[in-house]
Amino acid sequence: MRWSSFYHRASRVFNEYPSFSKSVIVCTVISSGGGLGLVAYGDAVQSSSDNAKERKKKVVILGTGWAGTSFIKSMKSTSYDIHVVSPRNYFAFTPLLPSVTCGTVEARSIVEPIRNISRKSGVNIEFSEAECYKIDPKNRKVYCRADPEKKMGGIEDFSLDYDYLVIAMGAKSNTFNTPGVQEHAFFLKEVDDALRIRQKVVDLFEKASIPSIPVEEKKKLLSFVIVGGGPTGVEFAAELHDFVHEDLSKLYPSLKSYVKITLLEAGDHILNMFDKRITEFAETKFKRDGIDVKLGSMVIKVSEREISAKDRVTGKVGSIPHGMVVWSTGVGPRPEIVEFMKQVGQSNRRALATDEWLRVEGSDNIYALGDCATINQRKVMEDIASIFSKADKNNTGKLDVKEFHGVVDDIIERYPQVEIYLKKNQMKDIATLLKFSQESSVTVDIESFKSALSNVDTQMKNLPPTAQVAAQQGAYLADCFNRMETCEQYPEGPLRFRGTGRHRFHPFRYKHFGQFAPLGGEQTAAQLPGDWISIGHSTQWLWYSIYASKLVSWRTRALVVSDWGRRFVFGRDSSRI
Amino acid sequence: MRWSSFYHRASRVFNEYPSFSKSVIVCTVISSGGGLGLVAYGDAVQSSSDNAKERKKKVVILGTGWAGTSFIKSMKSTSYDIHVVSPRNYFAFTPLLPSVTCGTVEARSIVEPIRNISRKSGVNIEFSEAECYKIDPKNRKVYCRADPEKKMGGIEDFSLDYDYLVIAMGAKSNTFNTPGVQEHAFFLKEVDDALRIRQKVVDLFEKASIPSIPVEEKKKLLSFVIVGGGPTGVEFAAELHDFVHEDLSKLYPSLKSYVKITLLEAGDHILNMFDKRITEFAETKFKRDGIDVKLGSMVIKVSEREISAKDRVTGKVGSIPHGMVVWSTGVGPRPEIVEFMKQVGQSNRRALATDEWLRVEGSDNIYALGDCATINQRKVMEDIASIFSKADKNNTGKLDVKEFHGVVDDIIERYPQVEIYLKKNQMKDIATLLKFSQESSVTVDIESFKSALSNVDTQMKNLPPTAQVAAQQGAYLADCFNRMETCEQYPEGPLRFRGTGRHRFHPFRYKHFGQFAPLGGEQTAAQLPGDWISIGHSTQWLWYSIYASKLVSWRTRALVVSDWGRRFVFGRDSSRI
Repeated sequence: MRWSSFYHRASRVFNEYPSFSKSVIVCTVISSGGGLGLVAYGDAVQSSSDNAKERKKKVVILGTGWAGTSFIKSMKSTSYDIHVVSPRNYFAFTPLLPSVTCGTVEARSIVEPIRNISRKSGVNIEFSEAECYKIDPKNRKVYCRADPEKKMGGIEDFSLDYDYLVIAMGAKSNTFNTPGVQEHAFFLKEVDDALRIRQKVVDLFEKASIPSIPVEEKKKLLSFVIVGGGPTGVEFAAELHDFVHEDLSKLYPSLKSYVKITLLEAGDHILNMFDKRITEFAETKFKRDGIDVKLGSMVIKVSEREISAKDRVTGKVGSIPHGMVVWSTGVGPRPEIVEFMKQVGQSNRRALATDEWLRVEGSDNIYALGDCATINQRKVMEDIASIFSKADKNNTGKLDVKEFHGVVDDIIERYPQVEIYLKKNQMKDIATLLKFSQESSVTVDIESFKSALSNVDTQMKNLPPTAQVAAQQGAYLADCFNRMETCEQYPEGPLRFRGTGRHRFHPFRYKHFGQFAPLGGEQTAAQLPGDWISIGHSTQWLWYSIYASKLVSWRTRALVVSDWGRRFVFGRDSSRI
Repeated sequence: MRWSSFYHRASRVFNEYPSFSKSVIVCTVISSGGGLGLVAYGDAVQSSSDNAKERKKKVVILGTGWAGTSFIKSMKSTSYDIHVVSPRNYFAFTPLLPSVTCGTVEARSIVEPIRNISRKSGVNIEFSEAECYKIDPKNRKVYCRADPEKKMGGIEDFSLDYDYLVIAMGAKSNTFNTPGVQEHAFFLKEVDDALRIRQKVVDLFEKASIPSIPVEEKKKLLSFVIVGGGPTGVEFAAELHDFVHEDLSKLYPSLKSYVKITLLEAGDHILNMFDKRITEFAETKFKRDGIDVKLGSMVIKVSEREISAKDRVTGKVGSIPHGMVVWSTGVGPRPEIVEFMKQVGQSNRRALATDEWLRVEGSDNIYALGDCATINQRKVMEDIASIFSKADKNNTGKLDVKEFHGVVDDIIERYPQVEIYLKKNQMKDIATLLKFSQESSVTVDIESFKSALSNVDTQMKNLPPTAQVAAQQGAYLADCFNRMETCEQYPEGPLRFRGTGRHRFHPFRYKHFGQFAPLGGEQTAAQLPGDWISIGHSTQWLWYSIYASKLVSWRTRALVVSDWGRRFVFGRDSSRI
């Protein structure tokens, strides 16, 4: 039972680019200045400042990860008082975290102070470095603490009112309650994690160099075990292999033969969210590199010096001595989110459920984005009667081609699974599905309508907890906030099938731009839209250029590129600082 | 009594470039493989390896700071088995530590793995990352521990035999037993210290930004107190001022007016080891910058939120609330050194006393360099009878000009204070001092000889605990080791006045190349040999170029220069990582 849940979660997480998983929590609350309408916009606000200030709605954002930062960067409207709360005063470009673990890129090169980002956005954004420890949706308040050690005699606690709250607090590493993981394993979600790993790797090499250490012990110290064959685990294994063979082997020549890298994956393959060709290439490359990939291996316990895993097929339990375990098997909800989910009646879920407009279900002024949230896509079959009756304008109980064409775009926009279903079944359009021919005399009744659409809901998919999703959600939501007033007056969304009029906004739609899996030795695999596969050295250069271009500022861009250059010239640094 | 001692120590320390004070401990022990003579040298060693190995003398070096690293870099002889032991596996370019505190330069840019340095030296050098916790001179052994937390069940402890031991373990920050300093103040000796300061500064700005913090509290949080007006304290104050005014004021505009930087100096002036013109310039500049310099202010207590100091003139005790205290008042001996000093009968000293050849007094195979050691220069007056009798070749009880000229060079080499005395009294040479005229008939008896030289010992000076001294000592000692065999046969040193023959080596002689005091705002003061003073922007560029050229490797050189460039373009980063 526990294992099936482990698989389920692990596969969900690993189906994405793991290094894109957000490492910083962002939650924004947009709280209104007292229920007044948004009347003053843009430059107008500047002119009658006092008056305008009263009218400004308060937005509080919790978190400065991909979702929160993307929201901040895209905010253009000056009609809000925005307050960002996060325990980290910087945004981190998390896809490069595995590179930080071995010093290919410096930690400081991938972070940007959130105040720099907000200053450049041109809108009024305040930032407080604090953790939100409680959300009170009833009184529209969030409670925050600036000092987790509570050393300031109470003044470190404060609360903020909001009109709108944007929860973008991310998720935490999921241990699946495996004993010993929290105590003995290293994670790879935050900048601090990456720095800790970097120190530990060098520390292990130094320890293994001590003259009094017997060979058996050297081998134990230099046994690195990575749990989780998703992109993060795979990239870390590859980075570590390169670090050992390109740099450390020169400085610790006598230790090279004792190093062992083991990758434990509970599923049948590593990188199982990628195309089979990529998986095969990666497994072959790792074998050649001497990285021991153990598939179907489910970790049951981690102790200080050993890790125990069970073979999924034979059921046999084996132990591997280790100097270091890196745990990278996906994400789970943070305790604050779990608490909040209880308050809004979502206690049995794995993440905060929102509607397609990223609004937390059961709330109209709280939004949730990124890894802490999941979109609860409405099923066609739940609304089938409403859709039919809305389409059947003349109430005949039959749908003709004309009536149908009046709602088809709205159906497709409101229920994206329809389009996926059509594509999957190689149908040109929804009319084909309903067997409407060119003749306008054909009609469809509710039963045929139901049966034609009965299978489309099977195509509903949860979005992966990746940086790409979070960033797009942040930008989408900011865009909605920017155009709130206009869209109240001129709604642009699809028809409200169960109500009247139209939705204010188009629902959020995720665009997948593909994903990378760096495999070490200057080789990368990429799966791009349209199932285009690319593997090898040229893909590494594609990776370099895309990542450089995606970096948050010119400063980080310059730093990361110079880090790469430095690594080519001087290798990675192994000073233990 | 305590205060006079404070002054004494503080002035000794501040008379040098404080940022040059070594932050890493290096101790090298050269231990012989069993007392066999050094017979095989250079290439010859390679040919009869087994035989040669037995003959190689074992050198153990404790520490990887300026002295130890300079020793390693200068070792060329392959006749030794060299083993370096240090708790830090890297060398740090400590003069740039104040720049690291504010992110002007990155920590990783100023460090170089010791294994990289030793690999490039071309001689056989082993390194162990461990602390030496006991030296046993009787059995020629050092006891080391690889893991200070003793978590490895005993195998972290090991001992090394030596034929020669080089102690270069540096010193620790001196708190002069002021209550609360150890617990509440920040130091600035190690890379870790600099990183902690950097985090704390940003942390204080973030705390002061919290909405619930009252203005009074904001002012307390942003009150930075620096104790010690030596070059390190002054440079840190200047860096902090620049960081606040050039970078943080943009990101925390509302806090700028609450920032207060206070510099407490117990003496009459800051930078009192420099020329008066530099001191005056610095004090005026700091006043203009709003840095509050309190002279004659002796700290008596540091608590978590307050620092108390006594005015040396009025005796009044005042308190300053602080968010952070940086303590930079000089160095004291490390506990391991204190323990060793007891063993060799030097318990009443402040540092390990060595002779002019850097050999620990009372030992013939242990050397001590850098901040942990002090050279006990032999006095002329102690040896005056021996000198006279050695000079008086024909035992007449009178010295004629010819006899005198036979020993004059040796006297000057053996007792450098003679030359300083002559220079100070504007005498051409020692013959002038002895009132030898051109006539060769003039003779001098022992009493006139004594009285002529009676004041020269007043010119004896301890060397400052600076990087410059340590680096020169390391290079000097390595050179002695490189030429040990040759110099045994053909001694090159001065006459042994109290023995027969000559000393093997020239005694160590320090060459002062001047020192810098960066004052912020792209201005630096420099005092160069020949009392050449230079202050201003051009001196800052001189500083940039000299520091860049002095860096230990091309890698660190490239990194530091690119850090400087980055700072000019993008400013300093304030992400709290």
